[in-house]
Amino acid sequence: MGNVWDVTTQMNHTHVIDQRFAPVAQLMASFAAEDPDYSGQLAIYQGGNLVLDMSVGKDSTPESMTGVFSCSKGAGAIVMALLVQQGLLDLEAPVALYWPEFAAAGKAGITVEQLLSHQGGLPGVPGGFTQEELLDSRLAASIIAATAPLWKSPGTHSYHALTMGVFMEELARRCAQESLQDIFERRIRAPHNIDFYLGLPEELESRYHPVLTAAQGPPPPFIDPFSPLGLALNSTGGFDGPKGQSFEIMEVPNVRAIREGGPAAIGGVASALGLARLYAAVGTGFIDESGDEHAPLLTEETIAKVSQDRVFGLDRAGGHLGAFAIGFMKAHANNDFGSARAFGHDGANASLGYADPAYGLALGYIPARAEVNGTGSHGGQLSVLARQVLLGG
Amino acid sequence: MGNVWDVTTQMNHTHVIDQRFAPVAQLMASFAAEDPDYSGQLAIYQGGNLVLDMSVGKDSTPESMTGVFSCSKGAGAIVMALLVQQGLLDLEAPVALYWPEFAAAGKAGITVEQLLSHQGGLPGVPGGFTQEELLDSRLAASIIAATAPLWKSPGTHSYHALTMGVFMEELARRCAQESLQDIFERRIRAPHNIDFYLGLPEELESRYHPVLTAAQGPPPPFIDPFSPLGLALNSTGGFDGPKGQSFEIMEVPNVRAIREGGPAAIGGVASALGLARLYAAVGTGFIDESGDEHAPLLTEETIAKVSQDRVFGLDRAGGHLGAFAIGFMKAHANNDFGSARAFGHDGANASLGYADPAYGLALGYIPARAEVNGTGSHGGQLSVLARQVLLGG
Amino acid sequence: MGNVWDVTTQMNHTHVIDQRFAPVAQLMASFAAEDPDYSGQLAIYQGGNLVLDMSVGKDSTPESMTGVFSCSKGAGAIVMALLVQQGLLDLEAPVALYWPEFAAAGKAGITVEQLLSHQGGLPGVPGGFTQEELLDSRLAASIIAATAPLWKSPGTHSYHALTMGVFMEELARRCAQESLQDIFERRIRAPHNIDFYLGLPEELESRYHPVLTAAQGPPPPFIDPFSPLGLALNSTGGFDGPKGQSFEIMEVPNVRAIREGGPAAIGGVASALGLARLYAAVGTGFIDESGDEHAPLLTEETIAKVSQDRVFGLDRAGGHLGAFAIGFMKAHANNDFGSARAFGHDGANASLGYADPAYGLALGYIPARAEVNGTGSHGGQLSVLARQVLLGG
Repeated sequence: MGNVWDVTTQMNHTHVIDQRFAPVAQLMASFAAEDPDYSGQLAIYQGGNLVLDMSVGKDSTPESMTGVFSCSKGAGAIVMALLVQQGLLDLEAPVALYWPEFAAAGKAGITVEQLLSHQGGLPGVPGGFTQEELLDSRLAASIIAATAPLWKSPGTHSYHALTMGVFMEELARRCAQESLQDIFERRIRAPHNIDFYLGLPEELESRYHPVLTAAQGPPPPFIDPFSPLGLALNSTGGFDGPKGQSFEIMEVPNVRAIREGGPAAIGGVASALGLARLYAAVGTGFIDESGDEHAPLLTEETIAKVSQDRVFGLDRAGGHLGAFAIGFMKAHANNDFGSARAFGHDGANASLGYADPAYGLALGYIPARAEVNGTGSHGGQLSVLARQVLLGG
Repeated sequence: MGNVWDVTTQMNHTHVIDQRFAPVAQLMASFAAEDPDYSGQLAIYQGGNLVLDMSVGKDSTPESMTGVFSCSKGAGAIVMALLVQQGLLDLEAPVALYWPEFAAAGKAGITVEQLLSHQGGLPGVPGGFTQEELLDSRLAASIIAATAPLWKSPGTHSYHALTMGVFMEELARRCAQESLQDIFERRIRAPHNIDFYLGLPEELESRYHPVLTAAQGPPPPFIDPFSPLGLALNSTGGFDGPKGQSFEIMEVPNVRAIREGGPAAIGGVASALGLARLYAAVGTGFIDESGDEHAPLLTEETIAKVSQDRVFGLDRAGGHLGAFAIGFMKAHANNDFGSARAFGHDGANASLGYADPAYGLALGYIPARAEVNGTGSHGGQLSVLARQVLLGG
Repeated sequence: MGNVWDVTTQMNHTHVIDQRFAPVAQLMASFAAEDPDYSGQLAIYQGGNLVLDMSVGKDSTPESMTGVFSCSKGAGAIVMALLVQQGLLDLEAPVALYWPEFAAAGKAGITVEQLLSHQGGLPGVPGGFTQEELLDSRLAASIIAATAPLWKSPGTHSYHALTMGVFMEELARRCAQESLQDIFERRIRAPHNIDFYLGLPEELESRYHPVLTAAQGPPPPFIDPFSPLGLALNSTGGFDGPKGQSFEIMEVPNVRAIREGGPAAIGGVASALGLARLYAAVGTGFIDESGDEHAPLLTEETIAKVSQDRVFGLDRAGGHLGAFAIGFMKAHANNDFGSARAFGHDGANASLGYADPAYGLALGYIPARAEVNGTGSHGGQLSVLARQVLLGG
């Protein structure tokens, strides 16, 4: 193995370390070749080795980092998995065992497993969260704890876009007496030198590239701010007491206060290499630039437990297919990012990070400009091809 | 507040009491302007005040009433909610606690919650019901009690178009020793002078306008009378023992015997003002024409309980999305009539009545000619706009 | 009753015994008239009497038998039903009561009901099965027993294309100390002289017509061999340890070793008359060519139990609708083969066999060339018309 194909232009680089992945690099390059507005980063580990690391387009550089939205929940889920592995968090226990206030308003029976797989019925709170509340996770948690769940129907789920981060943060505080962000920094990011931050330090601000947005399409249909979807999207401006200013979701990580706080729902900042390394660190371990071996953070047993499907079906809010493990997204017919064993998360801008134990793969993908995700998307195509080259297809 | 915009033509009237709702009145008027065959009524309460009351088109008048089909189930669900509030009906109890014969044929474990949220697996009976059986609820109930459920799969539901009314009627008799229709008249309709009848008195027949039907389309595909859908539609004429004459569903309330009996499944007759006032009476209370205040029928606690989602998913019979609370329909992606807190019911002719506590709204809509319902329909558009004007959007 | 319409050409025959079914015979004949490549067999019993038996097209003869793929699971399900009827198999018991090794890897709580209705989460094993393993059911069962389920979410199902046969075979061995194939031969096939073989004898090979395949379409999209769908399809050739050669699914029964072994998942060989007679033998009983009456194999009580819906929803692997009873497929909106009481199974080539107690029907349909199944397919159309003629519609 070695640097078989290495291209560095003024802005970008393409570093194909394992030649089997050359077709994947070509596919990524073709996205930029076909669309002058396209920029992005891609990094892949296989079996603990970095096999591909590249950036394309004028808005991505080898060093750039940007907002990865709900990929942050993947980082949060890894912290949850560490707590499970340590025996500090029992998935079958009621949430209220750790967080007694959560028992209010008919929620005494909701288990950790249900809560962390989007089955809790708490996609948002009626008045929405202000930015201040979103950044003060204790405050947000106390509001959620007093809220009644939308449903009482086992097996129903809907995507908890913001509240999922608060759940994770509160469980971290309650189980480990430490903030989720501190656990992530101390036990995961720093020791493995991972370019994925839940709380971007001031001194790294120069590497932050704002999330770019797509050209405006037609105005979206009305979303009732008090519907399950409106609640999940924190569509404030509501009739019976809007509390905060409305903001465009794609702009969220472009706000320095969000990047500084790094809420687990949405506040992560990363490079594709950071995203890929995060998942390599979890599953296979990896060999770093100095040749040092980093052992996997999670045991196979823990991975099997936290990556097992806990819910599958139509989303109560949007009516689309969804599948979730403990905090992690699972691949399915409409989001074909991996095998039955793959676990990870994508973000609202179509950033994608996951590990797939069936292939020993860890992949990070980040477009500079927000785009769509799911089966057939740029990230979906790259994920399929990465597996095909390994299958020798 | 005052009569800002008041128009009365030979047939119709438009009474906009709260000027914020003028755009909603304009939308309703546009339906008739665009289609000479369109007629209908619309009434809206907000915060207990009538804010809009209107009729448009040649087939609707301010005084007309017509069949509202399954909006009747909404009225039945309100009676169920009263029984819950009084402590006479426990949602978590097995149905057989109140109705011992129901335990037959493997149904001992079915709870009231499951039964009233369309999860009972009893959409119909193999030979269908005759009109006589439909109008003799004790008889229909005894036939249902002997029937085995179609499924044994928790969380499965299908719309119980006719049998739901019988369930409610039997529970009313068993829990309150009074017919559902009598409870509705005595405790709800009469004291609040609501133009919604489960059993239309002979003297009001002159106000009844027959339900009009749309032009005939192509013949529908075969519906097996013994399939879940055929059973729900009471498609008699079956091979192994049809019992009753077949009838066109849109004609059902046009039969005087049906209007007289007022079965809770399908037999209600109302004006839009009656529908809206029914839901205002339930949730916010309302101020009547004499300025008298009518306190809400249900407490916030009862409303929260009976309007919480109990099932969400694909209908076993039709394969479409559905969401139900305790007898009430809930809004979802394909039937966008309200927020997560809204509860109500629509009818086969696309009549629609609901309360939405998130907005303090109660809305009644009745087209004179049967049309389609759901997201994007006339009623759906009116519901969206009523919320948008309150949000100031 | 009598031979009202009887046509025998050089290759085919059409034997309409009950004139009510002449329109069904005409529909079947029209398939061949419209498409020179079409051939197939159709047989129908009603009330225990053969009412129609025919073959059309150049590739089907009255005597031909061919592979019926997953219709084999219907035969396996009938064996399971016999065990239930005998009290040897309790649907509510954990699988591990009969098959202790199955308790491994988190499967101790999975019940027989869940396993036989595709809810077990074991659609395949990561490396796939070799042909040898598929034909040695004990070996396949031991591999499955060690495997962790893909999900831990009650009510989730996905079609267990191959493993379902192994489950049935292992349960037969454990509960009856006899192979499923031997039970089928001894108790079902031989005494009723049914042309449906799980293990085709050498001397009947001359009647076997290879399954024909449709013209090649565009290459299918990538199916990850380690995805739920890839596992179900036994897509070997996998990266981390493919064990067996890949084979085209339509060719499976064309391999003599498969036909000889007759695995319950996929190995059955039958004529349409055999398929129809199998289901007549189960439900109504039937009168044979000598006028002898064959009593039904299953009681009404057993049929009610094993044919009741146990799961309904979207398939975890493919995202399509599915409904299953105990080993049997149930009709639903997208696979409209019968009433709510119908039970049966189709095969990958669109062969179809079922009983419908609501009509006293048993139907077998086998196309010579693989085609699509479901609502609107050839088999679906024939099934609809067979019911319509009985309804007198």
